[in-house]
Amino acid sequence: MNKPLSQRALDYHSQPRPGKISIELTTPANTANDLALAYSPGVAEPVKAIHESPENAYRYTAKGNLVAVISDGSAILGLGNLGALASKPVMEGKALLFKKFAGVDSIDIEVDAESPQAFIDTVARIANTFGGINLEDIKAPECFEIERQLISRCDIPVFHDDQHGTAIVTAAGMLNALEIAGKDIHEAKVVCLGAGAAATACMRLLINSGVRRHNIYMVDRRGVIHDGRGDLTPEKAIFAAIGTDKRTLADALEGADVFLGLAGPDMVSPEMLSSMAPQPVVFACANPDPEIKPEIAHATRSDLIMATGRSDYPNQVNNVLCFPYIFRGALDVRARYINEEMKMAAVRAIADLAQEPVPQTVKDAYGIDEISYGPDYIIPKPNDPRLLGVVADAVAKAAVESGAASKDYPGHYPLSSIDALEYI
Amino acid sequence: MNKPLSQRALDYHSQPRPGKISIELTTPANTANDLALAYSPGVAEPVKAIHESPENAYRYTAKGNLVAVISDGSAILGLGNLGALASKPVMEGKALLFKKFAGVDSIDIEVDAESPQAFIDTVARIANTFGGINLEDIKAPECFEIERQLISRCDIPVFHDDQHGTAIVTAAGMLNALEIAGKDIHEAKVVCLGAGAAATACMRLLINSGVRRHNIYMVDRRGVIHDGRGDLTPEKAIFAAIGTDKRTLADALEGADVFLGLAGPDMVSPEMLSSMAPQPVVFACANPDPEIKPEIAHATRSDLIMATGRSDYPNQVNNVLCFPYIFRGALDVRARYINEEMKMAAVRAIADLAQEPVPQTVKDAYGIDEISYGPDYIIPKPNDPRLLGVVADAVAKAAVESGAASKDYPGHYPLSSIDALEYI
Repeated sequence: MNKPLSQRALDYHSQPRPGKISIELTTPANTANDLALAYSPGVAEPVKAIHESPENAYRYTAKGNLVAVISDGSAILGLGNLGALASKPVMEGKALLFKKFAGVDSIDIEVDAESPQAFIDTVARIANTFGGINLEDIKAPECFEIERQLISRCDIPVFHDDQHGTAIVTAAGMLNALEIAGKDIHEAKVVCLGAGAAATACMRLLINSGVRRHNIYMVDRRGVIHDGRGDLTPEKAIFAAIGTDKRTLADALEGADVFLGLAGPDMVSPEMLSSMAPQPVVFACANPDPEIKPEIAHATRSDLIMATGRSDYPNQVNNVLCFPYIFRGALDVRARYINEEMKMAAVRAIADLAQEPVPQTVKDAYGIDEISYGPDYIIPKPNDPRLLGVVADAVAKAAVESGAASKDYPGHYPLSSIDALEYI
Repeated sequence: MNKPLSQRALDYHSQPRPGKISIELTTPANTANDLALAYSPGVAEPVKAIHESPENAYRYTAKGNLVAVISDGSAILGLGNLGALASKPVMEGKALLFKKFAGVDSIDIEVDAESPQAFIDTVARIANTFGGINLEDIKAPECFEIERQLISRCDIPVFHDDQHGTAIVTAAGMLNALEIAGKDIHEAKVVCLGAGAAATACMRLLINSGVRRHNIYMVDRRGVIHDGRGDLTPEKAIFAAIGTDKRTLADALEGADVFLGLAGPDMVSPEMLSSMAPQPVVFACANPDPEIKPEIAHATRSDLIMATGRSDYPNQVNNVLCFPYIFRGALDVRARYINEEMKMAAVRAIADLAQEPVPQTVKDAYGIDEISYGPDYIIPKPNDPRLLGVVADAVAKAAVESGAASKDYPGHYPLSSIDALEYI
């Protein structure tokens, strides 16, 4: 542990062998009889069965539990457009999390595409291989059209986690923060710093959760997004404030109830924070350096409820609270897509879980004696083994009730085969 | 075992869970520290390292041991063009064999492409994900252009197993059969029934092995391929017989030393077989029903050396003798392509192995007391654990010596981590 993180990370990725995942056999392949079933001549039977009915791919192949994590490497973490190949460690890491937390088999696919349309065509053509597609680290605004077309062209769930995973976890934390602060979500004034893919997805889901459209101010590099600006993409234009004279982040924050930062370090000053309404809710999610440091924020205001993207402060907004389980639920009822009902079910399940007593194993893992619902615990911890049950369960139910599912709700979580249960 | 094969095959593909492969973790993911290395923030280090030098993908990701088995489902086994999804059980089966026999991690990708060019573009765009690409069950003549373009566009090995794997194993068996029959390969007259992808690849490799171009007659559905025909694809035209008056399979077989069948059942009559030269070599490889039944062939001629594609007769021509090991060798020296030198090294290694004494474990697996080099044993058994060592070794050496390799020959087989060693 004396080595710096950078060296430990490189060591971790090269030992015991390069990378983090492997392919293993789930059936016996030890005898000539085994191989006659696994390959020629036995394999002709499932081939013919699938040719007769494509649904049989879910009975006789790994498709139904297999999610591709796909990127073009155009927006890798906070590092930018470093190309498809450079994104591979991130995508493999996501595959590792899928398996560990929800028993979802997951393989990374890096796509070198000369255009968004080439990326879309490529993914659509290989989509039948998988039971679901998790898009990752694709830059805006291209990601919107990419996701839209792929959802339309594929009959399996397609989910851009940077948008919707972030939005779901943020909304879950926000619901609890507002409740603890005693604020009515229908009246809450929200400022969002950043107007990229994650930010617009968060605002859409907050609106679905009860925030009023006219109570939202989005702020990008050029200031408040308003209807007097001529430089807005369609995605931003939806959130343009109407007839406002607010122009700067400071203008917008004055009297605001909620701040959501998805931008960069130290962009919120103590003065701006002081100008917010009583009991402000501050989600400063830029990673690794938040829009305002928690130490400074708490020193500035004692009535604050704060979340960040970091694991070393309370209330970490971490996508791993959602994506393994939303896919687990979607796969288990063979949802053809992930709709708003399923996303809202995930929001509610994550939020509700934070209001339950915390298991001792979770406390032990963090070395914290007491964790209970309140300003410093508005959202579950990433290692909470109950997430699998409650989130996948809620998503599966919502898929069935909303008509997205192709088969019945299995009605029992957690599933016994899932490695996630061993996670501490 | 009372169930018919068809039911046992479906059961095998649905139990203990659908399909035959899964994704597993190769690194620990149990603590917050583990996850900080596997994903955020640690994962940024290998990302940056790969961005600086693409070679680092081989150090920090699973790429270097990962082979995609890719098909469009246009020529599945002997079943025809049943579509990409229906090919999935075959491709998963191939992935299973890669892992089992040579420790190669392998994932299937099924491509729904509207044209050969769309297939090529799709595979080329995702190729960086993998360390090698095994093309499978793609119909002729499209497969030729597909392989040609992909070899040119990718800097990893691309190998159409139906062509080259078949050719390598066939040539290996043929070399030994000719030796045992006391025939000089330079003088051997060869008749090939079938003129598809496998057949033309076999003829090319036999020519590289010493067969003279003018001693080859290829026969397709319309009879002998000769220079008077106006209906030949470029691939067939290469093998057109010059100035011949032979027109039928029966014409071609008269006096021939070698018959290679890659066509269909019962197309060679006892009369045709009788007309062949003394000590004829007959490879009747149509599966499951060969061009002439071994019982009939042996009853017709006692001086015959015969091979089939079936496991229940001696001398099975089975691609699994080659493809796991040629990729193992290519991956271990990071070959940028698989060249003729590597293919010929595999031919020679497989042929030579059959001339060595057979291990007791192999005899036990087949319940045969005595297996030794001769007319009934011209080619190794698929379960021979020595194949990994000798074939991968020979391929790796040939890659280094011919300039195809990007790094040095590891110099030690079998590698200790390989599951194949447990195979009986």
